Amino acid sequence: MSKAASILAGDRLTLARLLTQVENDTAQGHEVLNELFPHTGKAHLIGVTGAPGTGKSSLVNQLALHYRKLNGHPNRIAIVAVDPSSPFTGGAVLGDRVRMRDLAGDPDVFIRSMASRGSLGGLAQATAAVVQTFDAAGFDIILIETVGAGQAEVDIARLAHTTLVIEAPGLGDDIQAIKAGILEIADILVVNKADRPGAENTERSLRGMLELAHPVQRVFQHHGKNITIPETIQSQAPLWVPPIQQTVATEGRGIPELVEAIRQHAAYLRESGNWTARDRTRIQSELDTMIQETLVSEFRAKVSDTRYNEVLKKVLKRSLSPWEAVKMLLNGRQE
Amino acid sequence: MSKAASILAGDRLTLARLLTQVENDTAQGHEVLNELFPHTGKAHLIGVTGAPGTGKSSLVNQLALHYRKLNGHPNRIAIVAVDPSSPFTGGAVLGDRVRMRDLAGDPDVFIRSMASRGSLGGLAQATAAVVQTFDAAGFDIILIETVGAGQAEVDIARLAHTTLVIEAPGLGDDIQAIKAGILEIADILVVNKADRPGAENTERSLRGMLELAHPVQRVFQHHGKNITIPETIQSQAPLWVPPIQQTVATEGRGIPELVEAIRQHAAYLRESGNWTARDRTRIQSELDTMIQETLVSEFRAKVSDTRYNEVLKKVLKRSLSPWEAVKMLLNGRQE
Repeated sequence: MSKAASILAGDRLTLARLLTQVENDTAQGHEVLNELFPHTGKAHLIGVTGAPGTGKSSLVNQLALHYRKLNGHPNRIAIVAVDPSSPFTGGAVLGDRVRMRDLAGDPDVFIRSMASRGSLGGLAQATAAVVQTFDAAGFDIILIETVGAGQAEVDIARLAHTTLVIEAPGLGDDIQAIKAGILEIADILVVNKADRPGAENTERSLRGMLELAHPVQRVFQHHGKNITIPETIQSQAPLWVPPIQQTVATEGRGIPELVEAIRQHAAYLRESGNWTARDRTRIQSELDTMIQETLVSEFRAKVSDTRYNEVLKKVLKRSLSPWEAVKMLLNGRQE
Repeated sequence: MSKAASILAGDRLTLARLLTQVENDTAQGHEVLNELFPHTGKAHLIGVTGAPGTGKSSLVNQLALHYRKLNGHPNRIAIVAVDPSSPFTGGAVLGDRVRMRDLAGDPDVFIRSMASRGSLGGLAQATAAVVQTFDAAGFDIILIETVGAGQAEVDIARLAHTTLVIEAPGLGDDIQAIKAGILEIADILVVNKADRPGAENTERSLRGMLELAHPVQRVFQHHGKNITIPETIQSQAPLWVPPIQQTVATEGRGIPELVEAIRQHAAYLRESGNWTARDRTRIQSELDTMIQETLVSEFRAKVSDTRYNEVLKKVLKRSLSPWEAVKMLLNGRQE
């Protein structure tokens, strides 16, 4: 049986090996992915992001458990835990330990941790390939968990159909500023640790920020005229306003409601045509990254190290500007 | 007088216009930068990074004021405030207002704010070009301030000769995890707001993390043998252990000591040869980014939009894998 066939048949060991090849961007990995690619496009990709201390790992854990128990839905779940904040993997490893206790031994749950390897773009691309592999392998729900609140999370969230942004009470107001950017990518907001004091405050401030980020559009242009939509029919417009869900992940509280909100978001995406639109954006950005990387390797094959270092030396001496250096290197390519 | 000559003569208006062209990556901007490039390489580039709430902007402000007043050093100071965390520029604008009060009207201080424009790589590259412009224009000290603690800060810190990481008491332990990565780029650690309760605790925990990140190397290899360096001569090894400086920026406390630590770091870099090494790394990464961007524009000129969209459509239908698509597009280039 070919590797692709083994994976489609549910062989975990072959899958684990392919994931490693895919992460390391090997030619063998690409070959198997080529074969598997026609089987992708079925999974619901769910991004989960939030600052450290929000209880993200427990929440992802509980979501996975809940999806596994849904009646009449024999869901297969993949969890991809990405830690772009640091070459240290402390956070991810800790999260894994929590998970192992509840999910270990379930053959229909597959957990994969990914840590930063220097390059941010590289991580987003490796994550995309890993997610694609799970998708092809027949996992119905893929939870992509990222730590932090920076550009890395935004890039990785772009992979997902539905993005959950997790908050928790008592993490300090200072962090609010940095969260403004991340709110824009939220499809669903979660106030986890909602049994702690301040949960209502957190929800209120999120609601305030949401209103700034997603003003409900009441006026449309039609034949050059502004048309105000009456309140009564506004709900018919295909518009998604991110709901806010309180949870206490450690006790499983709010999880069924959160899963229902995720289901509604998927239904909204399909009805509005946004599911295809997000797919298109994701695949196009993947394609563009791959084109870029291939062009750079072509260039490296055509320009000798000696030549490159000569030119670099001139730039370091300031006798050549970087722009002049680029022109010189590109003109000197050997076909 | 040419634009480059005006800038070398200290014309602020021409400089401001060039900065805008450089940020927008225009051909005119490149032309002037080509002319100015031989004049770069003189400034001390100082990166200042830390989470929101650490008082970074006040600290940068105070550093600028102190540098301006140093006896016998008629320093010209540039401040580049970068906010990669969000497309909103709230933080930077706020910081600017604080600055305006103390630094406004000083013709030898130039402040430039830069906000994220979607692409992370783009921001780091634009920042590099802006810094280069200030360097060429004869600014002696360039303070590069970034908000947050993600990969963006690491990328931007790579521009600097000396990187200051700012902490403050009472920002919560949860943030510590995300700070581990940022510690690795710190040349000097600052505990700002040191008059607040908990300053000693913050310093102690930083010291603990430092010892993990920078273990003092006591054993060297020599002709294949491990040689343990006696404690007495260890201080002679060209080794930089990041010092920790407490400050209260709002009152100017600790600022002269911090400036002295920065001077010592510059001296260390020059003696150890690391100044040149950092310059080389920075310029090489700049060159590589420019090569990459040029290759992508070449490709776009050679492949028609129609062709590209045809191939993309096949990938979206899953009848072609991304790897096959890249091969097809690259083979179909028109020379």
